[in-house]
Amino acid sequence: MLEGIEGAGKSTQLKFIQQLLQSTEKNVIVTREPGGTFLGEQIRELLLSPRLEGMSADTELLLMFAARVEHVQQVIFPALAAGKWVLCDRFTSASYAYQGGGRELPLSRIAKLESWALNCLRPDLILLFDVPVRLGLQRATTRCQQLDRFEQEKIDFFDRARTIYLSLAKKYPDQYRLIDSSLPLTRVQEAIQKVIMAFLEENRDA
Amino acid sequence: MLEGIEGAGKSTQLKFIQQLLQSTEKNVIVTREPGGTFLGEQIRELLLSPRLEGMSADTELLLMFAARVEHVQQVIFPALAAGKWVLCDRFTSASYAYQGGGRELPLSRIAKLESWALNCLRPDLILLFDVPVRLGLQRATTRCQQLDRFEQEKIDFFDRARTIYLSLAKKYPDQYRLIDSSLPLTRVQEAIQKVIMAFLEENRDA
Repeated sequence: MLEGIEGAGKSTQLKFIQQLLQSTEKNVIVTREPGGTFLGEQIRELLLSPRLEGMSADTELLLMFAARVEHVQQVIFPALAAGKWVLCDRFTSASYAYQGGGRELPLSRIAKLESWALNCLRPDLILLFDVPVRLGLQRATTRCQQLDRFEQEKIDFFDRARTIYLSLAKKYPDQYRLIDSSLPLTRVQEAIQKVIMAFLEENRDA
Repeated sequence: MLEGIEGAGKSTQLKFIQQLLQSTEKNVIVTREPGGTFLGEQIRELLLSPRLEGMSADTELLLMFAARVEHVQQVIFPALAAGKWVLCDRFTSASYAYQGGGRELPLSRIAKLESWALNCLRPDLILLFDVPVRLGLQRATTRCQQLDRFEQEKIDFFDRARTIYLSLAKKYPDQYRLIDSSLPLTRVQEAIQKVIMAFLEENRDA
């Protein structure tokens, strides 16, 4: 799974990681959250729509998990059962960062819903692309014409999201690998390659 | 709150109850689920869309609660705080009947999500409009041109939903009033009037 705030470079690196895995003859599917299914993409539209400003944080979290459960049941489980590798742009960590950090919902409340919805399903590896908030937002705003409901948030929101991401990476070092996205592209890709190759080595029989 | 399966006559009776309450000078708002807010109506469209056949039962339940939480926070709480009466076409009981009965999700699983989302918020009075499934579906299908994702379900689905509704009414007699919707309209409305007047009498200071 790839995680990170706006402008952390996830989309660029997603393709790079896909090619890396394919070069080792892994069968890879690439997907994203919220989204990844026909229904999930409809939910994504609702979640990002600037018209829905004022949505309650609980509603936002329930919609994220509705899209996630559909994604897991319709796409991720069948892919894993078929022996494929699943490469996903954001997963549950993003709910802790955005609804927990950004919207300030208690993390224990998110954990309860995670347990209800996913029964402890966690990714094997999470690459956290970390970037200072101002640099990330600069990159994101030059990229987009119109900002979505999350991108319209203030610096504080993303600062809180980044803090949660970093604390999760610290708390679960077995799962998370921190990648410094403020470095030049070649340096970032060297770091990714090192992480992926080490992971493949550790999971040679998977 | 009004509850009942397809063709139980909720929509017709909703207006009758609204007029009854207004005739006693109550300030009433009428709303519905899933829906009741701009976002909720968008979620309703997703839930009813026949294109989304195959949606998982957990996803369906999460979407129902996403719409419900938004509805409670944006519409129901503010109305109650302003001293208004809230008359709603379906609420949480419908999730027990449709996702519990119809889709066969464990009721304890629904209760956990209800407790997470609503923190024990329950209506003061629930009118359950009960009708044999075949009669209800006959009424519903002559009414509609195109059947929605729920209306396309088979008789068994609605039998299970009706069974749950009836068991809830039996389990919580203080909250539920059972109205036999297979009777002629005037008889049904006499029954409603009796229930509403008794409720107003009991809650004279509310």
